[in-house]
Amino acid sequence: MTTVSWVEVDEAAGFGIANLPYGVFARPGELPRVGVAIGDRVLDLAAMSAAGLVEDRRYFASGSLNAFMVAGRLAWQANRDRVTELLTDESYRGRVEPHLIPVADVELLRPFEVADYVDFYSSEHHATNAGRMFRPNAEPLTANWKRLPVGYHGRAGTVYPSGTPIIRPSGQRRAPGDAEPSYGPSLRLDFEAEVGFVAGVPSAAGRGVPTGAFRDHVFGFVLVNDWSARDLQAWESQPLGPFLGKSFATSISSWVVPVAALEAARVAPPVQDPVPLPYLRCDEPWGLDLELEVRINGQVAARPPFASMYWTSPQQLAHATVNGAPLRTGDLFASGTVSGPERDQRGCMLELGWNGQQPLELPDGTERTFLEDGDTVTIRAQAPGAFGSRITLGEVTGTVHPAQP
Amino acid sequence: MTTVSWVEVDEAAGFGIANLPYGVFARPGELPRVGVAIGDRVLDLAAMSAAGLVEDRRYFASGSLNAFMVAGRLAWQANRDRVTELLTDESYRGRVEPHLIPVADVELLRPFEVADYVDFYSSEHHATNAGRMFRPNAEPLTANWKRLPVGYHGRAGTVYPSGTPIIRPSGQRRAPGDAEPSYGPSLRLDFEAEVGFVAGVPSAAGRGVPTGAFRDHVFGFVLVNDWSARDLQAWESQPLGPFLGKSFATSISSWVVPVAALEAARVAPPVQDPVPLPYLRCDEPWGLDLELEVRINGQVAARPPFASMYWTSPQQLAHATVNGAPLRTGDLFASGTVSGPERDQRGCMLELGWNGQQPLELPDGTERTFLEDGDTVTIRAQAPGAFGSRITLGEVTGTVHPAQP
Repeated sequence: MTTVSWVEVDEAAGFGIANLPYGVFARPGELPRVGVAIGDRVLDLAAMSAAGLVEDRRYFASGSLNAFMVAGRLAWQANRDRVTELLTDESYRGRVEPHLIPVADVELLRPFEVADYVDFYSSEHHATNAGRMFRPNAEPLTANWKRLPVGYHGRAGTVYPSGTPIIRPSGQRRAPGDAEPSYGPSLRLDFEAEVGFVAGVPSAAGRGVPTGAFRDHVFGFVLVNDWSARDLQAWESQPLGPFLGKSFATSISSWVVPVAALEAARVAPPVQDPVPLPYLRCDEPWGLDLELEVRINGQVAARPPFASMYWTSPQQLAHATVNGAPLRTGDLFASGTVSGPERDQRGCMLELGWNGQQPLELPDGTERTFLEDGDTVTIRAQAPGAFGSRITLGEVTGTVHPAQP
Repeated sequence: MTTVSWVEVDEAAGFGIANLPYGVFARPGELPRVGVAIGDRVLDLAAMSAAGLVEDRRYFASGSLNAFMVAGRLAWQANRDRVTELLTDESYRGRVEPHLIPVADVELLRPFEVADYVDFYSSEHHATNAGRMFRPNAEPLTANWKRLPVGYHGRAGTVYPSGTPIIRPSGQRRAPGDAEPSYGPSLRLDFEAEVGFVAGVPSAAGRGVPTGAFRDHVFGFVLVNDWSARDLQAWESQPLGPFLGKSFATSISSWVVPVAALEAARVAPPVQDPVPLPYLRCDEPWGLDLELEVRINGQVAARPPFASMYWTSPQQLAHATVNGAPLRTGDLFASGTVSGPERDQRGCMLELGWNGQQPLELPDGTERTFLEDGDTVTIRAQAPGAFGSRITLGEVTGTVHPAQP
């Protein structure tokens, strides 16, 4: 199989033949449908199916990937193989080219309908930093942290596609030293740079998904910005965890990168000590060498390394289902903030500005402790792809709008 | 308007003309559809619509109430008025009676598709008791508890209809005094007797739902059993709240009681001191005089009084949306365990058996600290209805099955 597409591709951008992520797009006045990114084009799979070029059981003429995600690993691989063939074999060019649309001419929509949304807390550096700030008089990592991937359910109904305006949330908060809580717009609005995976194939109630069955259930990966209002969160979170400090918005990237495209990015995760209980052990290395980049108003704010995450995606999935909770198509699992050991590798303002105490200076000289109205946060990621290439997870972006009066 | 139906009704059972709750049912070999309970019958609204007896914009020939729930308050009231007329005016009897089906001949299904599921913690007695047990060295109520209705997101995908078998969950737990956590079936399986409300009409992103708009958005109330594995929960919950200790199963009752049916049950809630922030104030009394009854294997275990809840349903809804998170049709909000001040009014085994230390003796002499395999938990509730009647919220029931090997 050739490793080069007849579509002209800027390899540095990461949308080459080794990637082929899925998304949902619409042209003005037309119905949404499923496409695959190649270079700066979208391959219209609904049109390709109508032309008899790809097999389709009504997966692609759809406003979400859910129908295709439920089809399972064999269908995913068969379609990936077929699209690869069509985009690399020059003899198909005449029939395929009419179905390539410039990305600039389409609107990218939320790629899938979210069933349940779970957010983990799997970066040791992030959890340690957050523990120091939120619980200064205690051990930064709670006793359970290295025993299980700590996580909680978030709000599925506020998972938005990249580009959705983020309205600054209002709510109840109590500043340190204040006797009384007050109501008003969050004064500590934050982003969290995360990576998520989405389930395609459901699992049976009462049976967990072992780490070795990850690929049979998970369709692909997205970038996630788990927007957070730190002042609301700090006041509300005891004893039952975050609620309104998180539930106003979570943004995901437009393109879902198939698990198969990330095989070349797999690396050994950090050594886990103590050794986890058997249900959390994993025979294969499932660290992922994704290099994240966070920009605020175009200025690089951080470069968090996903390979440093303590708990891996298959461990997160095995844990979330070990109690018999079944998976549904569209279940989204986010990693938690990705933070590396260095200051410029931290994945949220809480850490970058050390709880407001050490402003982050951006390359252009502007400073931030938390986000201001008008700020645009864009998270991107690149990873090793097949054939020595680089692939991208695309981007998730959002601009902060003032609180509603 | 007469207050008596021509359908023979056992008034003590609570399914009289003042109730008229909605559900989804199926007869063997037929498609599910929407019905209303009257006495020991289901009025088949899909068939009534086909016969031109009720107005219907495709609400009722459906496997869920969601299409009807989104139609809004005027449609809900119009249908309630029409069904009341049909069931009280003897002149309709000949045309309506063919569409009354014995409840015993149908299967009652999950009444609506759950969008997001939020669980509150709004009983002062429960929160105080739980605080004493889980955090014995701290104030039982956290500093935020009387300032806002503490809550968190639960797993929508495991909200099951009444009658669904509850498989004992396995997971990670560490007993007090144990150095290491272990894996295995929960040893502290519990129920939680709760009351929930379900949203029908969505709200706009960025705008909260004020307490005064509760009736414009909320379709009705159900009984909830928020099954809990206390050992999993205790080990996992810091710092981000409950996860696997709750996510294996939540059961809801088959009948959704319209808000309109509960008008006669409204009472003043407990005095709130300190006075809540303005967004949580409510001009109207929204305590609800629901008398819950919990039975274990048919034996009365507790009678929790819902009227004792500190935070009311409109306050919970206003709080959950104050950050701009929009409502979706099917959003379910549960009250948290309903516990009164007396021991026999406590709504979960954790409290009834005081964390395993004081076994609960049931009327037949059997004892329980937590639930055993084979135990059936049934929660019922009654409330004052219109015309001096009593209405019921029906029941939510479930039997504990052994953990999967």
